[in-house]
Amino acid sequence: MPTLSQRLSNLHASPIREILAVIQQPGMISFAGGLPDPTSFTRPAMAELPLELLQYGASEGELALREKICEELRALGLACDPTQIIIVSGSQQGIDLVAKLTIDAGTVIAVDSPTYLAALQVFRFFGGRFIELQRNQRASMLQGQQATLCYVNPTFQNPTGYCYNQLEREALAQACQQHDVLLFEDDPYRDLAYDTCDRTPICSLMKKGSWVYQGSFSKTYAPGLRLGFMAASKNLMSYLVSAKQAADLHSNRLSQHLVLQALQSPTRQHRLQELQTHYRSKRDYFAQVLEKYMYAHARWHVPQGGLFFWLQLKQRFDTQALLQKALEQQVAFMPGEPFIASAQPEHSYVRLNFSHASSEQVEWGISRLAKLCATHSHIAPHSPASV
Amino acid sequence: MPTLSQRLSNLHASPIREILAVIQQPGMISFAGGLPDPTSFTRPAMAELPLELLQYGASEGELALREKICEELRALGLACDPTQIIIVSGSQQGIDLVAKLTIDAGTVIAVDSPTYLAALQVFRFFGGRFIELQRNQRASMLQGQQATLCYVNPTFQNPTGYCYNQLEREALAQACQQHDVLLFEDDPYRDLAYDTCDRTPICSLMKKGSWVYQGSFSKTYAPGLRLGFMAASKNLMSYLVSAKQAADLHSNRLSQHLVLQALQSPTRQHRLQELQTHYRSKRDYFAQVLEKYMYAHARWHVPQGGLFFWLQLKQRFDTQALLQKALEQQVAFMPGEPFIASAQPEHSYVRLNFSHASSEQVEWGISRLAKLCATHSHIAPHSPASV
Repeated sequence: MPTLSQRLSNLHASPIREILAVIQQPGMISFAGGLPDPTSFTRPAMAELPLELLQYGASEGELALREKICEELRALGLACDPTQIIIVSGSQQGIDLVAKLTIDAGTVIAVDSPTYLAALQVFRFFGGRFIELQRNQRASMLQGQQATLCYVNPTFQNPTGYCYNQLEREALAQACQQHDVLLFEDDPYRDLAYDTCDRTPICSLMKKGSWVYQGSFSKTYAPGLRLGFMAASKNLMSYLVSAKQAADLHSNRLSQHLVLQALQSPTRQHRLQELQTHYRSKRDYFAQVLEKYMYAHARWHVPQGGLFFWLQLKQRFDTQALLQKALEQQVAFMPGEPFIASAQPEHSYVRLNFSHASSEQVEWGISRLAKLCATHSHIAPHSPASV
Repeated sequence: MPTLSQRLSNLHASPIREILAVIQQPGMISFAGGLPDPTSFTRPAMAELPLELLQYGASEGELALREKICEELRALGLACDPTQIIIVSGSQQGIDLVAKLTIDAGTVIAVDSPTYLAALQVFRFFGGRFIELQRNQRASMLQGQQATLCYVNPTFQNPTGYCYNQLEREALAQACQQHDVLLFEDDPYRDLAYDTCDRTPICSLMKKGSWVYQGSFSKTYAPGLRLGFMAASKNLMSYLVSAKQAADLHSNRLSQHLVLQALQSPTRQHRLQELQTHYRSKRDYFAQVLEKYMYAHARWHVPQGGLFFWLQLKQRFDTQALLQKALEQQVAFMPGEPFIASAQPEHSYVRLNFSHASSEQVEWGISRLAKLCATHSHIAPHSPASV
């Protein structure tokens, strides 16, 4: 074996990869991935497919799609023009591109704790180190830390479902501007809102400085098409486009065409409302089932949007070992540890997705999970921490 | 502006990105990109699209597609099983993934001279240094160089169209095994063969050691779908799949479905033969037009396959400045310098694509190019080299 890159020592087995494999097994009840409800998918209209889509395209993406996205971002208060929009092959690619632009070995990245595990994974892969921000102390914690990048997922955060309030948004924007930290706002869940809350893009509050705002079509349209977008401050655009070209030349043009059609569809708002209603009722049902079975084992908040419940277990568990027990019973969930940058979280957590499983599956799966918590209370982590 | 990554100092403006932009301008005659003839595209059959394709999928790609590809590679003599196949979002992504796995600052990569420019671009981006292999001396030049990676495009090479003979293939496989160099064989043009020549995958001659073989559906099916595949020695697979997952979770499932349908189609072989016949006649016509107009200005070989003529200009030119003059007349070509790893090539070169332009455009464009060579012979490079 030839010597491989240093980077690989930071490439750990990926919980996401395991999950994408597990969910394809028949009979599995999965609370693990952030999977849309397959009953919400609608067949794309393919009849009028322009043949020119089969040819190579521009690295930035299709202009018509970029213009449409730009128009929508402006309506959210984010000042930008179409030259600041780039189409990416899903949000995950956006994370890869920003990491390439910003992270060398030792680069400091400020993140929430917990935060999106696959962002941590990529940032680590490129050699990043983390500082973990505490809610309501983000601004002060950014001071003097020499962070290059601040990665946040402020609207219905993965994994907690938490939505920053107005003060938190303003404080973070101000701190990033003041300390010259690149703000990377990952916002795939914004349209999955079930209660009223502030969803102002934090990037729209950045009057100077460097920022990247990222959105996805995976949660409201179709993850299998792998399509998302980034908007960024002008100083970053040429780097982002070059990195995108080097990564895969450009994103799938068929997907771009289908997504543009969906965005332009007269039924789009109606469809989004239906999706919100559907997921709101799934969330409420999931909350009831959790109350019924998990009350003795965990505490949680009901999320105002997004796709997840984040459970803090009352007892400390080796959640990886618990997962293995659950998988034997065809129930999948996400252990909480990979969402936390620091090695030794104080508590044990699990993330449960409520959008994918059917009602029957939810009741069956959660009751099974509760039983596992009760009967396997001996599955403690190897290194006890102060609770 | 926050401090960006060291890596960015190696991120140069990309000729490919420029070209992808230029070719979309109406009226442009492009000999620049490696663009398939758009008249060769056929509309994919979309009627029976399974809705499950809209959901997230596996990072490795769809199993049925991987099995089909594996079967075809075995027929070429490449011993592998489906666990050694991974679907990627075009060959460019394969280059990115292999670079991530192998290249740190200073890592030595052996390449042909010239070689595919976007591979050089990505390898440089990750900090790679190059040694340039001379034809028929590759094995001896690999000795004692401590190269980690050897990147080649042996079958109808981009840009030269050259096809390694049997001895060259065997010698390179042996040298890579002997010196523990990871062989990365990029093979997007294999099916665009117009004359008989040895196309044995070099990776099939590797009885031990590490190798990655890469193929693409862009040249024979549709580049806009951004789909390719990699096969690799087993020791690399877990790294490749993790890097793939970190890059974009998985490739577009709709594209994977369409490509599998195309591979399974009973008309596939017939379609490939038609494409070869069509491109062979385009190549022959292009060769005639070159003889007619460019004889005084350049020398070249007629390629046995692929999509390009590689012209060595008889006089030294600043080919970037020549390109600007050509673009003013709506003719695009690729300057040769970006294909050469060393800073100062002895001669000036241009790469001309023959698959995309129509016959009328070829005659008009090449005659215009010849006139530019004649009238702008003062456009010499800044630093004269010994010729």
